[in-house]
Formats: sequence, structure tokens, C-alpha cells
Amino acid sequence: MALAQRLTNLGTETAFAVSLAAADWAAKGNRVYPFHLGDINLPTPANIAEAMNVAIADGKTGYCPAAGIMPLREALAHDVGSRRDLPYTSANVVVQPGGKPVIGKFVQTVMNPGDGVLYPNPGYPIYESMIEYYGGQSLAYRYVQTSTGFAIDLDHLRSLITPTTRAIFYNNLQNPLGCESSADEMQAIAELAIEHDLVVLADEAYYEMRYSGTSHSIAALPGMLERTVILYTFSKKFAMTGWRLGAAIAPLPIAESITKLNTNDESCTTHFVQAAGVEGINGSQEGPLAILAELERRRDAAWGELAQIDGFVCPKPEATFYLFPKVTDVMTRMGFDEVGAFATAALHNTGVSFCTRKHFGRPQPGEADHFVRFAYSGLSVDDIHEGLSGLRQWIESAP
Amino acid sequence: MALAQRLTNLGTETAFAVSLAAADWAAKGNRVYPFHLGDINLPTPANIAEAMNVAIADGKTGYCPAAGIMPLREALAHDVGSRRDLPYTSANVVVQPGGKPVIGKFVQTVMNPGDGVLYPNPGYPIYESMIEYYGGQSLAYRYVQTSTGFAIDLDHLRSLITPTTRAIFYNNLQNPLGCESSADEMQAIAELAIEHDLVVLADEAYYEMRYSGTSHSIAALPGMLERTVILYTFSKKFAMTGWRLGAAIAPLPIAESITKLNTNDESCTTHFVQAAGVEGINGSQEGPLAILAELERRRDAAWGELAQIDGFVCPKPEATFYLFPKVTDVMTRMGFDEVGAFATAALHNTGVSFCTRKHFGRPQPGEADHFVRFAYSGLSVDDIHEGLSGLRQWIESAP
Repeated sequence: MALAQRLTNLGTETAFAVSLAAADWAAKGNRVYPFHLGDINLPTPANIAEAMNVAIADGKTGYCPAAGIMPLREALAHDVGSRRDLPYTSANVVVQPGGKPVIGKFVQTVMNPGDGVLYPNPGYPIYESMIEYYGGQSLAYRYVQTSTGFAIDLDHLRSLITPTTRAIFYNNLQNPLGCESSADEMQAIAELAIEHDLVVLADEAYYEMRYSGTSHSIAALPGMLERTVILYTFSKKFAMTGWRLGAAIAPLPIAESITKLNTNDESCTTHFVQAAGVEGINGSQEGPLAILAELERRRDAAWGELAQIDGFVCPKPEATFYLFPKVTDVMTRMGFDEVGAFATAALHNTGVSFCTRKHFGRPQPGEADHFVRFAYSGLSVDDIHEGLSGLRQWIESAP
Repeated sequence: MALAQRLTNLGTETAFAVSLAAADWAAKGNRVYPFHLGDINLPTPANIAEAMNVAIADGKTGYCPAAGIMPLREALAHDVGSRRDLPYTSANVVVQPGGKPVIGKFVQTVMNPGDGVLYPNPGYPIYESMIEYYGGQSLAYRYVQTSTGFAIDLDHLRSLITPTTRAIFYNNLQNPLGCESSADEMQAIAELAIEHDLVVLADEAYYEMRYSGTSHSIAALPGMLERTVILYTFSKKFAMTGWRLGAAIAPLPIAESITKLNTNDESCTTHFVQAAGVEGINGSQEGPLAILAELERRRDAAWGELAQIDGFVCPKPEATFYLFPKVTDVMTRMGFDEVGAFATAALHNTGVSFCTRKHFGRPQPGEADHFVRFAYSGLSVDDIHEGLSGLRQWIESAP
């Protein structure tokens, strides 16, 4: 059966193959340390599940409005707005089954076929997939290494912009790099957006996942509110990845369009899960604070181990739950010239499973260094120490 | 801000305007009888919510595979397969956040821009919306009145087929008409599909929502299994409309494509809701049987009232939860020539709120009769009697 042509432009998350390889290795009786998953192995705070059950008992098992229940839209408008000093109202908020649906719905709403859309590479692979699937021109911007992490290569980004460039994906704080923009960098992106009339998808999935400092939103810079869509998710802060709850926070015309897409795509987001989200935002914050504290302990444990490895260059991010070390020297010393082969050997020799740079977009011309990504959100501190010290011993015992 | 051109081809469910008018009328202090909603005001069986809480306690709050959890895929393959005598396996089953997402994902998978896709009119409005949104040629087939209800106008349907026709939406049992195909009619549709190499979306949302007789699936006719995608939903049978749980049951190439769309669109369906679905299918069937028995009482109550109205012609369907009376004579007698004006007058004089034929697709050339749709799933038997006897008195007291 011949399927539709458009499917040839649809990408995916190739990290799935890493999960599969890890599962295969575990099925053969081996211990696996799953650093490849951006998931959280902590329970959702109990008050959130309790609020869900109250909603079910109260009959919230039927359809609800396509844009979401009003209490959740109001709670998000207030919470997201006050954390960014922005005057959002419920009309700006369109609830989604997760943060991810915002990506495709943003592309459908603002991009015509042939339009250029800028996106980070390395970056979350669904940006590129959705741009190309809907017939856009995907324009990958890149990062340079700094003394403390990574920065956007602004000159390169500027060189990609043409009169048909329409939008930019901006993921600050960044997956997989763990980096964040300086004030100057964010200002430069905003100025480019205004100068070239670009719409911005600000993927702020990790906005509240930080251990020190303060997050800033590009939507709060002058002239940006009316051209920025914020991707919000409950997944990280409340350990709710599998609940599928998020939202687009958008200027009204875009919010209305995304609502209409909701009506066509899934009617609404699970009714009582939205009630749970209201409790997450308005209820006790002990749960999310405990989650964040535990993630910080894991960050410290994982970074402490990786930074000790001779030949790894590993920045220490204050946000996200990812570490993105440069592993070029280790690979050279051990005789690997392909980063996937290095990852497979690490799995088979140490049980440590991780993604590589190649899972976050096609490598760009001239890339000489090799990087891998460790997600520390899915392992206990003890398992992090156990897994990564084994990795270090394997690397350091190489001839 | 100029939005993308494609949005001009996006339809919606115009029945939303009816909900809004009903809510406005209620907000002014009036009693409203909501016959416009295809929702169910009965609780989801308790064992299903209990299974969900067991899953949450068991940590099923993280991501799960894009195609769904294996126990649910296996349960659906067995349940849907055995009820249709078809050899489905878990590989054919792709879990969705509701039945509706199957519509757009089917269109994306099998239809190229410019291809023709047949769909029922009157019918569920999202078929037409998704065909046109993705650049297809929407080919509306129609129904004729019979002594017991409605039948597909097969000659007209045949006349619509050209070499570029690629697929057909086939909704047996039908919303809004409440009708179902005779064996001959279903056979004729299957033969046309095979002759013209059409892929079939069999929307079987109401397959188990029947009070007598036996449902049949077009997928079970010879030569049809490999060209048919079944839309399955938990919404009706288990009173789970707001839970958002359904599935595509599809030939493998289509199932794989829909899984890849899941990865891009929403990652996965809510993890623990899928565990609840396993309990729905494999657990006690007392709950769904009680729901069906109550809906039959409501059908009898609603039909009993409507059939008494002088000038209504109201078939008595054995399936779905819709009644679709012809109201031409009543409108003529009361001086209405536009069915929306009749519905508004009914709301304002009796509080009875219902959709009209116009909410289920553009009226076709030559349509002389007027129809309205009553959904009886959202009102108690007492409220049905109260509301519809008031409607009858209003109609019969007209000069």
C-alpha cells in the first residue's frame, strides 16, 4: 500500500533506538543505567493525584472545552505571567496534552510551505521534524563552546536569515546542551526577531528546573510579547511526564488558531488531568520543591563523576537535567572515531546508556568534536555514582 | 499577524455554537435540556478509576511507548478482533488520546493533496475538515430516507468516484443519523472500495452501543482487512468521553505511520489512563452493561416523546444515542423556513437545545427536508420526558 508522500518528510526521535538497545541489553540479564531518557523516576506529588480523584468523583469525566477548563487557563495565565512579569489572561492559554503538541501546532499556525524556520542544532529533534513535515525550510542554527558551556553562534544564525524566514524556535534553557542565554544573547535574538518580523516559539519546558539563579523569558523583552508563543509543560516540575499536560501561551490570534486545531486533533485534553494541574499550580509547592532538590543532588552526583573522567570536558549547568560533555579526547584515546560506536561499547562494558549528539539533529559541516548527553533525572544518586564510576573505570583502564 | 494559509481550509465542530447558545440561555436563569451534546452524564465505572489509581501508585506516571502500553494493545487486539472475527495482533493497535485523533492521522497517512476522499454528509464534521485541511478533495456522499431510517445513496456515491479517489470514511453506526447499513449496503461499499482501491476509515465508535441485533464491521468482509483502519474509542461504552482514550486498529504500514505521528504530535497517550483502559476491557463488564441499559431507557423515553409529535418523522434506531427526526411539516406549520431559527425558538420557548442537520456538513443541492438531531445520552429519563413533553406542547399549541 502506497502511503502519502508527506510522510517522507516526517522525522522522529531517534533516541528511541537507544532505549531499544538498552532494553535488549537488560533483557540479556545485564544491569543498565538509563541515562538516555529525559524522564523522571520520582512519584508525582500526592496532592495532585488526590485532586484528580476529587475531580473524577465530581463527575469531571466528560468532555470539556477545546482550549481547556477555565480554572486551569486562569491558573496558568497568572502563574506563567507573574513569573515573567507579563499580563497574560486565560484567553492566551490553550491547554494541550503535553508540551510537545505546541511544536506542531505552532508550525501549522505561523508557517507557510517554503517559509524558513530557524531551530537549534543540537536541539530537540521534533522542531526539525515538524518544520519539514509541514513543508517549511528548516534552518539549523548552531552553538559554540565557551569556558562555562555553550553559546548560540549569532553570526551564523544571522547568516541564515532571508526574506522568507518566518519563525524561530528558541529553547532557553536548552535540551540537550543544558545551557542558557546570557542577557546579551537573549537580547540579540529578540532584536533579530523584531528586525526580521519573526514569530518565536519559546520552548520554556525547563524554565523552573534550575538550581540557582533566575530564569528569564524572551517574551518579556520589549516588543516580544506579541510575537512569542511560550511552550509550557507540567512534565518536569511536577514529575508528570506520563500525565500529558501542557499549554501554549500565545497572542490571541495564535491562541484561537491552536484552539481550533485542538478541536480537530483531540477534542480536549483529559478533563480530570486538567483539574490535577490546577492543584499543581495553586496547591502546596512542597512536592515540586522536593523534586527539584532531588534533581540537584543527582546533578551534583552525575557532574561530580563525569568531571573526574580524564578527557571529558563537562560544563556544570544550573538548569535542565542534562549534562553534555565533550568526549573527543576519550574517544581518540580509546580508538573510537564514531560516537555511536563509543556509546554502544560503553553500554556493553559498563551498562551505562546515553544518547549522543547525533540524536539531536544532523551534525553540521565542520563539526570536529564529539559530544554525548547524560540525563540524570531517571536514576537515584546511588545508581548515578555506581553507573558513572563504572564508566570512569572502563575509560581509565583503556590502554 | 498573518497566520498560515492552510488554516483557511480548517473546519470545526459548529455544534459549539449551540453549546454556547444553551449556556447563555441557562445563564439568564432558564432551565435548559441539553440534547445537543453527544456526551454521557453517567459516571465511569468505578473499577476503571480504581485501576488507574493502582497504576499511579505503581509509578505509571512517566512516558510510555508512542504506540501505547503493550497490555492495552494486546487487550484491544483481542477484544476488537474477536468481536469481528479478525486476527488482529498488538502490532495493529496504535493507542490514541481519544477516537478523534485517528481521523486526522488517517488522512495524513493515506491521502496526498488533490486526492479525493469520500465522506458521509450528514456526518461527523471533522471528516470534511481534515480532508480539506490536508489538501484533499472532499467528496460528500448522501443518504436517502427509508421506511425505517436512512440508507446510503449508492448511485450517488458511485458517481463521485474518479481515478484520483483514494479513501472513504464509513461511519456505521452513524452519527447523526443513528442508522446502520444493511448487509447488502455494506457489501456494496466493500466492493466499491476493492474495485477502486480505496482505503477505508471505518469509524466504529458506536459498534458496541446497540440495544438489539449485532454489529458488523466492513473490515471483516473478504478483501477488506488489509485496506481498513478501524477507529476505536473508549468514550461511549465506558462513559469515558473526557478521559481521551481510543485507538487506530490498522494494517501494519498504516499503524507504523500513525505511531510515528504519535511521536511527533503528543509522545504518548496518558500512561495511567491506558492502564484504566485495560481494566475496562478485561475487567468486570457490569459497568458498561449498566450504561447501555440506561441509554436504552433514555432512547425509549426520547423516542416515545418525539414519535408522538404530530409532524415529526422519527425513526427508532437500535444503535448510537441519536435521534434524527424530519421536522419539515412542523416547521411549515409553525412558519419557520430555516432550521436554525426553529432550533433557537425551541430553546427560548421550551429550554430544549438540539443540533440541526446543518451542524453535520453543508446541505447538499436539492435537499428539501429539514432534520434535527437529539442526543439523549446526557439527560436522565425524567429530564428527557420533562423536556420533550414541553417541546411537544409548544409545537402542538402553535396556531
